Amino acid sequence: MTPDLPTSVLDAPDLQTPCLVLDLDVVSGSIAEMQQAMDARGVALRPHAKTHKSVAVGRLQVAAGASGLTVGTLGEVEVLVDGGLTDLFLAYPLWADEGKARRLRAVADRCRLRVGVDSIEGAMRLGRAAEGSLEGVLVEVDSGGHRTGVPSDAVVQVARAADAAGLRVLGVFTHGGHGYDAPGASAGAADDEVRALTEASGALRLAGFDAPVRSAGSTPTAIGSARDGMTEERPGTYVYGDRQQVALGACRAERVGLVVVATVVSVTAGRFVLDSGAKTLTKDGKPWMAGYGWLPRYPEVVVRSLSDYHAVCDIGDGSAPALGERVVVVPNHVCPVVDLFDAMWVVEGGRLMGHWPIDARGRSA
Amino acid sequence: MTPDLPTSVLDAPDLQTPCLVLDLDVVSGSIAEMQQAMDARGVALRPHAKTHKSVAVGRLQVAAGASGLTVGTLGEVEVLVDGGLTDLFLAYPLWADEGKARRLRAVADRCRLRVGVDSIEGAMRLGRAAEGSLEGVLVEVDSGGHRTGVPSDAVVQVARAADAAGLRVLGVFTHGGHGYDAPGASAGAADDEVRALTEASGALRLAGFDAPVRSAGSTPTAIGSARDGMTEERPGTYVYGDRQQVALGACRAERVGLVVVATVVSVTAGRFVLDSGAKTLTKDGKPWMAGYGWLPRYPEVVVRSLSDYHAVCDIGDGSAPALGERVVVVPNHVCPVVDLFDAMWVVEGGRLMGHWPIDARGRSA
Repeated sequence: MTPDLPTSVLDAPDLQTPCLVLDLDVVSGSIAEMQQAMDARGVALRPHAKTHKSVAVGRLQVAAGASGLTVGTLGEVEVLVDGGLTDLFLAYPLWADEGKARRLRAVADRCRLRVGVDSIEGAMRLGRAAEGSLEGVLVEVDSGGHRTGVPSDAVVQVARAADAAGLRVLGVFTHGGHGYDAPGASAGAADDEVRALTEASGALRLAGFDAPVRSAGSTPTAIGSARDGMTEERPGTYVYGDRQQVALGACRAERVGLVVVATVVSVTAGRFVLDSGAKTLTKDGKPWMAGYGWLPRYPEVVVRSLSDYHAVCDIGDGSAPALGERVVVVPNHVCPVVDLFDAMWVVEGGRLMGHWPIDARGRSA
Repeated sequence: MTPDLPTSVLDAPDLQTPCLVLDLDVVSGSIAEMQQAMDARGVALRPHAKTHKSVAVGRLQVAAGASGLTVGTLGEVEVLVDGGLTDLFLAYPLWADEGKARRLRAVADRCRLRVGVDSIEGAMRLGRAAEGSLEGVLVEVDSGGHRTGVPSDAVVQVARAADAAGLRVLGVFTHGGHGYDAPGASAGAADDEVRALTEASGALRLAGFDAPVRSAGSTPTAIGSARDGMTEERPGTYVYGDRQQVALGACRAERVGLVVVATVVSVTAGRFVLDSGAKTLTKDGKPWMAGYGWLPRYPEVVVRSLSDYHAVCDIGDGSAPALGERVVVVPNHVCPVVDLFDAMWVVEGGRLMGHWPIDARGRSA
């Protein structure tokens, strides 16, 4: 089964293209499936909310059994707390300058908040800023993604700085982002997550820290690293799925639960143009995926190039949509797409049933 | 001179990074310079508002002498009309389905609106939808960008369909998007714009149409095609500039007037991470530009990879910013970046003087 929408939804006059449509049956199924997988492994699930930025979807995840949510920015913390979601992990090395320190204290008093640290200076600054308002911190370990995080053998010194700054050290976390490098990379990245967290956690224990959290996370590696003493997983994209996750084998095609609806606005020999340009689909992509999106009903089509409001599609050898036709487009990477829309249409039981705000859209700071 | 901000602005506690900062002196200068260039050539300037999506900036362009503004979506029309900017060209083959037809009629009654057409069916549908509320239409010609638009020799049949549908045909327009293909491509693309519009306009005249508008447009080609009977230019990005325009030679470095301010949140041997990820800088790029942005104070740095909230930067052979330091980043392509922020800080005379809304942000439909 490939992602699709009933004609009655696709052609609904309420939809103004380009727009986002969430299939609540699919998304609820994805939420339950990941929760069951983690429950079966005895690992806590703390989904990353940056994918959906939605209080309503976050509530579904918590209702299904998530221990809380993960976020990437202070703005996301503020929005989710306003929405009543108050057990949060800001998995990011927040630099607590004067303005952010003020915001951090204001919101931390209203929730149970963990924050990431990956430097001595960052930990010292966070300690001064937090004034005891945090539940604690997790030290970030670089497990091979080479983004943020310290090597396993540097975890203790960051933890000591945090401790000295009055922050309770709860454990260690990592993001095996190299699981996105290519199809097949996720198994190795999951192994790397387990190894790095085991080493880092062992070093903390030897240094006298009672800091049991070992938190790994990404959709491609979530199932693979939920073992051998890992205590928490933080996948985000699994909630909606996207073309990249399907290509990586991390998501079955029928688990794609958020799609773009676009209209064919122009047709020429060999190509057509959709109204879902770079300000809808984004230019996110991978060398191992051709173009900027996937049209499930027209699988031979390649979305060759994007400008702001145009997606130029090569027809290829298959069939093509007609001028004026609305089509479903699965984005390459759903997370930045969500950040371009204020709201999404919601389908349940095959019928349009709502228009939900994307509450934390644009809250990158 | 390279784009920069005074330390007092860069380090202002009001700025929560990542954020956008507009230098009003620079932007006013760019607006005046392009207007003077067009005035000197006797060509009307109708800047594309999709770059700034700001009523305030649009007003500056009109106050400087712009004949009106260009937009790409019906949502942009609605926002600008609400802001009192009422001479607009929707340079896009709008597909007037039931919902958009309703919105089009509602807004067209409140402004002087031209719309693009590039198909017989689209023109017929637009005519039925508009019910006489439009100033008229322009037929889009493909001058070599191969996006939307018809070949010059097909213009007459589209114009006849529009005329039969009750739409006044005002002229022809094109976008020489192939001027973005590589540095050096813009001169040829400007020639192509002039040739295509001249041919198409001649064909319309021979067919009996009194349709004098010959409208070309893009920042790289604007100056080059403002000649030989072209009546209008529609550059957009010139108002802010960006790394791509500088690399193309279409914008001097000191004319970059909108920048991202980001904070260094993590430092490791050989690399550092900024908080301006893909949800700020976007993954827009070109094969002939390395990475995802330009740090004017650290020109050796390559913004190697982006995830949602992380920009991973390779230090290279030069100097690098310190942990916690705020830096100016010039985006590769400013238009989609603007769509990710609700507002921008405004600097005038070297001082923070305002926080302006990005009024039409997210109005892609």
